[in-house]
Amino acid sequence: MENPVLVEVTRGNVVESRHRGAIAVVDADGAVVAAIGDVTRPVFPRSAVKALQALPLVESGAADALGYDEAELALACASHNGEERHVNSARVMLMKAGLDEDALECGSHWPARMEDIARLHRQDAEPCPLHNNCSGKHAGFLGLAKVMGVETRGYVEAAHPVQREVKAAVEAMTGTTLGADQCGIDGCSIPTYATPLHNLAQAFARFGTGQGLEKGRAEAARRLYDACIDEAWMVAGTERCCTSIMQAFGGRVFVKTGAEGVFCAAVPELGLGIALKCDDGATRASETMLAAVIDELVEQDEQEAADLAPWLRPAVRTRKGFAAGEVRATANFGSLLKGR
Amino acid sequence: MENPVLVEVTRGNVVESRHRGAIAVVDADGAVVAAIGDVTRPVFPRSAVKALQALPLVESGAADALGYDEAELALACASHNGEERHVNSARVMLMKAGLDEDALECGSHWPARMEDIARLHRQDAEPCPLHNNCSGKHAGFLGLAKVMGVETRGYVEAAHPVQREVKAAVEAMTGTTLGADQCGIDGCSIPTYATPLHNLAQAFARFGTGQGLEKGRAEAARRLYDACIDEAWMVAGTERCCTSIMQAFGGRVFVKTGAEGVFCAAVPELGLGIALKCDDGATRASETMLAAVIDELVEQDEQEAADLAPWLRPAVRTRKGFAAGEVRATANFGSLLKGR
Repeated sequence: MENPVLVEVTRGNVVESRHRGAIAVVDADGAVVAAIGDVTRPVFPRSAVKALQALPLVESGAADALGYDEAELALACASHNGEERHVNSARVMLMKAGLDEDALECGSHWPARMEDIARLHRQDAEPCPLHNNCSGKHAGFLGLAKVMGVETRGYVEAAHPVQREVKAAVEAMTGTTLGADQCGIDGCSIPTYATPLHNLAQAFARFGTGQGLEKGRAEAARRLYDACIDEAWMVAGTERCCTSIMQAFGGRVFVKTGAEGVFCAAVPELGLGIALKCDDGATRASETMLAAVIDELVEQDEQEAADLAPWLRPAVRTRKGFAAGEVRATANFGSLLKGR
Repeated sequence: MENPVLVEVTRGNVVESRHRGAIAVVDADGAVVAAIGDVTRPVFPRSAVKALQALPLVESGAADALGYDEAELALACASHNGEERHVNSARVMLMKAGLDEDALECGSHWPARMEDIARLHRQDAEPCPLHNNCSGKHAGFLGLAKVMGVETRGYVEAAHPVQREVKAAVEAMTGTTLGADQCGIDGCSIPTYATPLHNLAQAFARFGTGQGLEKGRAEAARRLYDACIDEAWMVAGTERCCTSIMQAFGGRVFVKTGAEGVFCAAVPELGLGIALKCDDGATRASETMLAAVIDELVEQDEQEAADLAPWLRPAVRTRKGFAAGEVRATANFGSLLKGR
């Protein structure tokens, strides 16, 4: 089954490039409320499920034992820019567990923003694992390991107690069994499991509403949801889509990006979860798809609509800043979404 | 008509993302020798046609009047990395025309490689238009303007004599008329015209063989072809696909990338031109498609095959360098190509 074109990239009056994808909108009971394309094909959710992977940290009591504040809970769910405050927060999370960056097994990469790269260059420094966009998640894994009283080394391995807890939480939330044949290695070295969009959307309906979750997990989900809203900047950072959209909707919407064109979202007031994948993995398309789904489903006041608008039809600019084209959802996006 | 999936990106045993596209393999007379997908849909060739856009510079005698050497001719056809030698070469091309970087209207952007970005940061400097990957092409346009005795200002505008010459050359080579409705603004501010892959491929069959070209144009094409081969590093730079493949095949193959997933290529010994587009605009896919087409069409000795191999199945790596998956042409790529 071919997923339809959902996003067009134009230059002048011509469509220059096209992105296909699938979207699932599901309630906490697993009923499909709206869908486009193949929502049963397994998709690596990548970072989009970080908030689910953080559930054991909270529900075990480890986050409280370590004294993590809301900003740190948000960082544990983050794909951050590696801006100074992100890096420092990850460092402090590790300190609270009696650890430092040497314990991190996520690897290093440069920060996302040129000004943060420049700072490192002017210091003649290389990035360290704290700069890795997953460092907050990994700090949370290490904190959980310390409170569990297990060896921290190898915490990224599938057989490690922390990853077994994380896998169990994701299985329970998605209502799936995550087998070895659908397992891959994520960019930050932890396991990632290919899961249908349908199940991912249901997981986020549960995450956002607490429905179908036993009390401790529902409370943990509520705390993580609120932390990501209250500290939306920690979840991504300056000028990032997740941060901007969560700030715009003031708690009504939770969104999280994943590599290779994935987004998961929750809209508790509608009782819904959303999961989407751009077939070719492009973030410019997944962001436009996410904005378009929110635009179709969520009532907006004037300010919310104004804040969402830049994500609906971002300009494609020349090197001199002139708008040469745009990225936009297809004209039939709304009817495709409501057609099921 | 839906273009087929031609490139898969895997993680473990699972296909994580998929890229669709079209490919045209055409001879100098316009006969389609092989094709995949819709080769009649207009595509912005972007930088893939720089060598055609450089024909007026050479055939007018301007390149010789200015004393451009082979490296500078190659830079005039380049999408370079903005490494030191690229930047200096563009500066000298301008000097030869009595100009400096202030004349460039392409805009600025950071170099491609982190070490070149670092150098600027350590100097507390911003990139200038010389760093723009198109600066050699633009220096050539300015050189042509000076020799033509026309105003240099506004040389990027469609109505400027230089752009009219460039458009006429591209029209003649592709056998098309480039109208306003298929015109867009390229990233570097010059016009770009959406053209079918079929016609682009034919243009490069002509470019590579000289067939169907009058004597002056055929000689200009030969000189530009040879310059791009002899100075392949100038055309792109360190670790770049175009540079690597042209160096590998020692003159047998000319290749040139274009933004939004485009490649054009010429294989003179087969009398063929190639033009391809990844539907969604991804360069990781267009590079893999290009390598796969070359692999199917071009006889390779052991060294050439070894040099091509890294471009056929590049690894997808974790932040720690572990191979988590790969980018590869689909299993049916060869039969799709030969099916027509």
